[in-house]
Amino acid sequence: MAEVKNNQVILKDYVVDFPKESDMDLVEGTIAQKLPEGSNEVLLKNLYLSCDPYMRMLMSKTEGPEGFQTYSTGSPLTGYGVAKVLESGHPDYKKGDLVWGFTRWEEYSLVPASMILFKIEHTDVPLSYYTGILGMPGMTAYAGFFEVGLPKEGDKVFVSAASGAVGQLVGQFAKLSGCYVVGSAGSKDKVDLLKNKFGFDDAFNYKEEPDLNAALKRYFPEGIDIYFENVGGKTLDAVLLNMRVHGRIVVCGMVSQYNLAQPEGVTNLQHLIIKRIRMQGFNVTDYYHQYPKFLEYIVPKIKEGKIVYVEDIVEGLEKAAQALVGLFSGRNVGKQVIVLAHE
Amino acid sequence: MAEVKNNQVILKDYVVDFPKESDMDLVEGTIAQKLPEGSNEVLLKNLYLSCDPYMRMLMSKTEGPEGFQTYSTGSPLTGYGVAKVLESGHPDYKKGDLVWGFTRWEEYSLVPASMILFKIEHTDVPLSYYTGILGMPGMTAYAGFFEVGLPKEGDKVFVSAASGAVGQLVGQFAKLSGCYVVGSAGSKDKVDLLKNKFGFDDAFNYKEEPDLNAALKRYFPEGIDIYFENVGGKTLDAVLLNMRVHGRIVVCGMVSQYNLAQPEGVTNLQHLIIKRIRMQGFNVTDYYHQYPKFLEYIVPKIKEGKIVYVEDIVEGLEKAAQALVGLFSGRNVGKQVIVLAHE
Repeated sequence: MAEVKNNQVILKDYVVDFPKESDMDLVEGTIAQKLPEGSNEVLLKNLYLSCDPYMRMLMSKTEGPEGFQTYSTGSPLTGYGVAKVLESGHPDYKKGDLVWGFTRWEEYSLVPASMILFKIEHTDVPLSYYTGILGMPGMTAYAGFFEVGLPKEGDKVFVSAASGAVGQLVGQFAKLSGCYVVGSAGSKDKVDLLKNKFGFDDAFNYKEEPDLNAALKRYFPEGIDIYFENVGGKTLDAVLLNMRVHGRIVVCGMVSQYNLAQPEGVTNLQHLIIKRIRMQGFNVTDYYHQYPKFLEYIVPKIKEGKIVYVEDIVEGLEKAAQALVGLFSGRNVGKQVIVLAHE
Repeated sequence: MAEVKNNQVILKDYVVDFPKESDMDLVEGTIAQKLPEGSNEVLLKNLYLSCDPYMRMLMSKTEGPEGFQTYSTGSPLTGYGVAKVLESGHPDYKKGDLVWGFTRWEEYSLVPASMILFKIEHTDVPLSYYTGILGMPGMTAYAGFFEVGLPKEGDKVFVSAASGAVGQLVGQFAKLSGCYVVGSAGSKDKVDLLKNKFGFDDAFNYKEEPDLNAALKRYFPEGIDIYFENVGGKTLDAVLLNMRVHGRIVVCGMVSQYNLAQPEGVTNLQHLIIKRIRMQGFNVTDYYHQYPKFLEYIVPKIKEGKIVYVEDIVEGLEKAAQALVGLFSGRNVGKQVIVLAHE
């Protein structure tokens, strides 16, 4: 069975605070270009890899809580990607199919089809979109905003990390639903993007707001109905002070906390009672059965230019570690993607 | 218009940390025993007054958030009580009616009927029950457990402050719903009560558990489906580590935090995401339309002895301040009630 070179990005050391490029290593492995006899797995050529904030949690040594398997040192990272099927032992996939789903940070991967693996039907959009707007982040924004947030026309919506892979979509969904939406981000460029490209009603740079509570009072004099939570910590504490009665906090991520050995304490949870707030964590995997419905909603809007998407694309597996690390310093503008091959 | 003596418990000073008896004062006022001409108010003779943890929040000087009016110094406290109608300018009430609802800490009160005021229909149960099991705390337990908690048979339920006015009922509702329920309380007597009187599957004294996380792992090796939150702070943080996927945290109160100038920080909120937890604050007033349905559920169970209720009753307005203060050191065993008159 012929083996070919298979470059991989492996986790070298468990990460303690902010991840560094040197926590990962680019190593040369090999892989058989044929499926093992009787296998029902799928052999993939990886085209695009997705950098997502949740990956930081899997880089810690701490025993993962229920349902959370952290990475193993010496093994390639896992994550979402777009790939082409080279061989398939599973009846749902055949050679030549384009797919998106769970793969590994390497050139070729042998994956169980029982993991998340969607066949790509629409190829008249950029393939990289299946790591973002048409993939996990898109479904996350859709399920989180509509299914967990239950928006009503006129709702006041606040989105943190608003120019990120998920946030930029939440803001656009909010506008399309007749809501007022304000986003926060960490640079002037990102704030401009929010206001001028994604159509947020307003946006601010949280790094220039020493008093987040005062900033929120300025943008939401009547309070916030829906907070789409991507960052956690101090931002959440300030938001709790500014929520309206019967508000909803959609807890999608807490990226400001992932690099801290001891997360910041949140002190204003009493406001959950006073204002009868629903604060709800969710995981996109619980909503993947709605993916066809999501495509019906979003594909026409992409084609008509009613929804736009900004990606930050780097070329080559050798840039992968740097790209992932950049996510936690906010270096990326838009969805961070790594291209390994274009087809 | 004849005026009569009307003893009152007033707030003397705004409270900073734990309330003290000396923060309140017993003063002699007067009140007209006739309604003002054309009034649609109701003149009440107060029979029972209810001591409830939420009252602590109203004793602080801090500007109340939306919908929260703190007490005024020099004025009587307000709160739930049971009373007899002496005069009524409102068509729904007539002289001689027994009612429960919002009144003031004084012998006689002139109240607007537009406040919460329910006519008492069942008088073959102790009248004091309308400050507890048949009043606001009963409705709180019912709405919180059933409407917010959405229990399923077999769910593992944890209740903090479990021997209190609300907690003792939540535990009994959980058992009647086929759940496994464990309660925490602050003394051996209370723990005995939980196990032997209220039928909790198990119970523990949190003061004897230096590691709350370890205690919860012992009582819930498979994790917690529903946490009925009455205390907040460190308890909530330990519970978050022990919740199951799709668990629900019913946020009813956070009594451990009410006396702190700076609430304890809660650091494990990331578990909301990992385990897809819904954490929801609620206010019983949103559910009062279900009161008739609640009575249908609970009155037969009281009469058949399927639900029991423990009260801690003191006599006389002069004991009221002490009774209220005792709530925050856990001195009371069961629902704290003050009797002013028996009819």
